[in-house]
Amino acid sequence: MRETLAAIRPLDTDAMAAARALHARLTKPAGSLGTLEELSVRLAGLAGTCPPPLPGPAAVGVFAGDHGVHAQGVTPWPQEVTAQMVTNILAGGAVINAFARQVGARVTVVDVGVAGPPAGATPGPAGGAAAEPAPAGPIGAGPPGDAPELVQARVRAGTRDMTVEPALTRDEVVAAVAVGIDTADRLVDAGAGLLVTGDMGIANTTPAAALVAAFTGADPLDVTGRGTGIDDGTYERKVAVVRAALARHAPDPADPVGVLAAVGGLEHAALAGFVLAGAARRVPVLVDGVIAAAGALAAAALAPDARGAMVAGHRSAEPGATVALRHLGLTPLLDLGMRLGEGSGAMLAVPVVAAAVRVLHEVATFDSAGVSSK
Amino acid sequence: MRETLAAIRPLDTDAMAAARALHARLTKPAGSLGTLEELSVRLAGLAGTCPPPLPGPAAVGVFAGDHGVHAQGVTPWPQEVTAQMVTNILAGGAVINAFARQVGARVTVVDVGVAGPPAGATPGPAGGAAAEPAPAGPIGAGPPGDAPELVQARVRAGTRDMTVEPALTRDEVVAAVAVGIDTADRLVDAGAGLLVTGDMGIANTTPAAALVAAFTGADPLDVTGRGTGIDDGTYERKVAVVRAALARHAPDPADPVGVLAAVGGLEHAALAGFVLAGAARRVPVLVDGVIAAAGALAAAALAPDARGAMVAGHRSAEPGATVALRHLGLTPLLDLGMRLGEGSGAMLAVPVVAAAVRVLHEVATFDSAGVSSK
Repeated sequence: MRETLAAIRPLDTDAMAAARALHARLTKPAGSLGTLEELSVRLAGLAGTCPPPLPGPAAVGVFAGDHGVHAQGVTPWPQEVTAQMVTNILAGGAVINAFARQVGARVTVVDVGVAGPPAGATPGPAGGAAAEPAPAGPIGAGPPGDAPELVQARVRAGTRDMTVEPALTRDEVVAAVAVGIDTADRLVDAGAGLLVTGDMGIANTTPAAALVAAFTGADPLDVTGRGTGIDDGTYERKVAVVRAALARHAPDPADPVGVLAAVGGLEHAALAGFVLAGAARRVPVLVDGVIAAAGALAAAALAPDARGAMVAGHRSAEPGATVALRHLGLTPLLDLGMRLGEGSGAMLAVPVVAAAVRVLHEVATFDSAGVSSK
Repeated sequence: MRETLAAIRPLDTDAMAAARALHARLTKPAGSLGTLEELSVRLAGLAGTCPPPLPGPAAVGVFAGDHGVHAQGVTPWPQEVTAQMVTNILAGGAVINAFARQVGARVTVVDVGVAGPPAGATPGPAGGAAAEPAPAGPIGAGPPGDAPELVQARVRAGTRDMTVEPALTRDEVVAAVAVGIDTADRLVDAGAGLLVTGDMGIANTTPAAALVAAFTGADPLDVTGRGTGIDDGTYERKVAVVRAALARHAPDPADPVGVLAAVGGLEHAALAGFVLAGAARRVPVLVDGVIAAAGALAAAALAPDARGAMVAGHRSAEPGATVALRHLGLTPLLDLGMRLGEGSGAMLAVPVVAAAVRVLHEVATFDSAGVSSK
């Protein structure tokens, strides 16, 4: 983690100036690509060159974990659904698989903290079809769109109940961050040009809300959402649980590892590492919903310049995501009312990011195309 | 046109009900895909089957035209830029080409009303590179991503000045609508599963504003935008021009051909036909910005059920686009502050539409994946 943090540097302002100057010469009215122009400028700054490289295939890291706070009744879904959905993703049957196939992205599932038997070893579908997980070979062995890969990197089998004790020890947090860093490094080594933040974990919007409140100072009521769609009674209990956990631990936002230990999840910590490694490798990281945004807040608290690598894929319907993105200074690319997680919203933004970069490579200038200016 | 209008029927409510029922069984929280769920339901209704077919390659029709109202000083860009940009698109150097390559879509440029020498015959780039237009063979001869195609179908060399006389005769409108119908029919025959509405025409946001005002009853001030980015004086003149044209002709929204003749453009009329043919063929049509939205308003006035085939690709920064989409009852998929035209915003929404359909094909059900429900 120390090495990764040390490698994170600010955006390259020369490359950004070059991208702005290039945009002014392209055959389109100045500013007519809206958000995409500033996005492409930031990506030039991240790459340190203009135009920045066309992103290679995208790769999503889906970090899976369970949560001791599930015992407080914050969701109607049973905890075993986390492991069942890991199996579903490995079988290619989840939404993130469909979206990854659409954009030609690789799917890597990382069991960083699922409860119960090792992920991928859970019973298959009733019909016996498709549940065979991909072999846990080296990440990136095959081309994008191949069978999803499983990484077994469980730090512990779910967190402790944050309303009773710290969810994690500091050592467990650091270990989970390292899992995220390692995952991103291996995906980038294998050719990924765009990292997508994914998650799976029943009850994980509860620690995400606590993390967003801790890092931004927002009230729990303003950052706690209905997750998978809970009823009023469950929602009130969820807000009270977040409030109680914050009151018990009084986490200090200047101590990000301490915040993650007090009220975090293993997937949130791993996502922080995933984002940090993307920033260190100068590869853009698409931030998905409230889980990823909570991890991104932790990453930014550890290394403020990591924000330069973050691209907000979409505006989740979870209120905590919007609060977190605002705190990070990020404008979401899509706003489709989604609240699924898995990296699904961010995955849909992959072609938009690629298109923004493509403009700097492929669009003719007024001079070269012989087009008159105004 | 009569044949196309007669073929347009309402969405199939049985297929829509089947899609809603299927969504409830897929391994994701109910409603968690937000806008995409209702989109996929509508596409099932359009196809008349659930799941609807995965859209084949997308194809954009870029309809190019010039405008007599250019003489009123509504834009600082010289009129010859329309023809120059047609050449640029045929050479693959415009933004729409870059975006089409990103999503694997075909580009067809249709000269329905450019002024000056035939489009594609304009002088090439200063350096002599790349300006050779693709041969005007049958549409869809090659695979998507191939060289852009040119269709020579000029109804007349630009419209008349609508502040002085009707922009077009009724016969010219009907001819331009037929060009749009023919283009869409040929693209669908060649395998396009998703049609994208594109345009190129210096000054064409001025007739678009007049069309939106005529069809929706909005005040010219609320539907006239700054197009390519005009200064305050030009903007005031543009609003006055739109107001004067509407006052002179008092177009009747119940007579769509009459509205297009009075204050329309040849590309707007062709886009109306393009949308109508998509609806008749039950192929979704992605509506781009204010030019396409104006054409879509004309299409909906001719055949209200055509709205079932329309998918709003993005919210253009042009205010008239938002007014038109609201009138059509359409929610834009993207909102990136774009105002380029060419079909660029709608093209970026292609993967989102495909992903929405893909969910209905590829995501496992709770039963099949052995995932517990709440």
